[in-house]
Amino acid sequence: MVTSHDDVITVLSEDQCWDLLARGELGHLAVSAQGQPEILPVNYVVDGPRILFRTAPGSKLSQLTANRRVAFEVDEHDDSFAASVVVKGNARRIELQREIDEADALMLVSWIPTLKYRWVSISPTMISGRRFARSPEPDRYVASADDS
Amino acid sequence: MVTSHDDVITVLSEDQCWDLLARGELGHLAVSAQGQPEILPVNYVVDGPRILFRTAPGSKLSQLTANRRVAFEVDEHDDSFAASVVVKGNARRIELQREIDEADALMLVSWIPTLKYRWVSISPTMISGRRFARSPEPDRYVASADDS
Repeated sequence: MVTSHDDVITVLSEDQCWDLLARGELGHLAVSAQGQPEILPVNYVVDGPRILFRTAPGSKLSQLTANRRVAFEVDEHDDSFAASVVVKGNARRIELQREIDEADALMLVSWIPTLKYRWVSISPTMISGRRFARSPEPDRYVASADDS
Repeated sequence: MVTSHDDVITVLSEDQCWDLLARGELGHLAVSAQGQPEILPVNYVVDGPRILFRTAPGSKLSQLTANRRVAFEVDEHDDSFAASVVVKGNARRIELQREIDEADALMLVSWIPTLKYRWVSISPTMISGRRFARSPEPDRYVASADDS
């Protein structure tokens, strides 16, 4: 009988977190602008200990990620499990041509066609992940539903 | 030939945004704490113009969402399209027993078993969504990859 979160959640190792990040294509980026949180989905690619994504020049995302603390999340799931990795770190625009060329050589899978873009990298300061088996709700929920 | 984001992105109407939210089960919540963005995946349910989710008592999520401005994102995608809706609003813990009972009667699908929880509601102040057809990258990317 499951009685708490702790019984079903597995904390991922740092290596497991990077494995999950490397498998994904779509992440969720959170940025804070004057106390107002913003969140956007982005395609990304992992390069060593960094996460790279692209922004359109002049876009809101481009402005939001200039030298900012960000949080970045990727999840994967099917009918039997769900897992999520959260990275916190600092975002920085890639400005040097050599670094731009290196980024362009990475196999970023972009779901949206883009001719003009700027690269942004996230250097992680913290990474954490968890995984859990998906299972039916315990009795409390069933009882609540039946009572309604 | 696709040459910019504007050619392929469809802006969703408010009704279309709510339709997408109503279909989903997993959202991404962004909160700002002293300028540090946080992001967490949460199961949720739509109730009229509100979004409801649950937190474990005493959890970080519970602390983060007490009377806070939040951003909340849900996306859906397959091989041919991707769509995303972002809601900004204010989070509030549901404290009144009558409201708790009403929330418990909603069909929230929680992927993780929970016996003890608190409800949190998001009252949206802004909702926006976009949808686009997924297609291969245009020439620039191919050229870059070939050059590497």
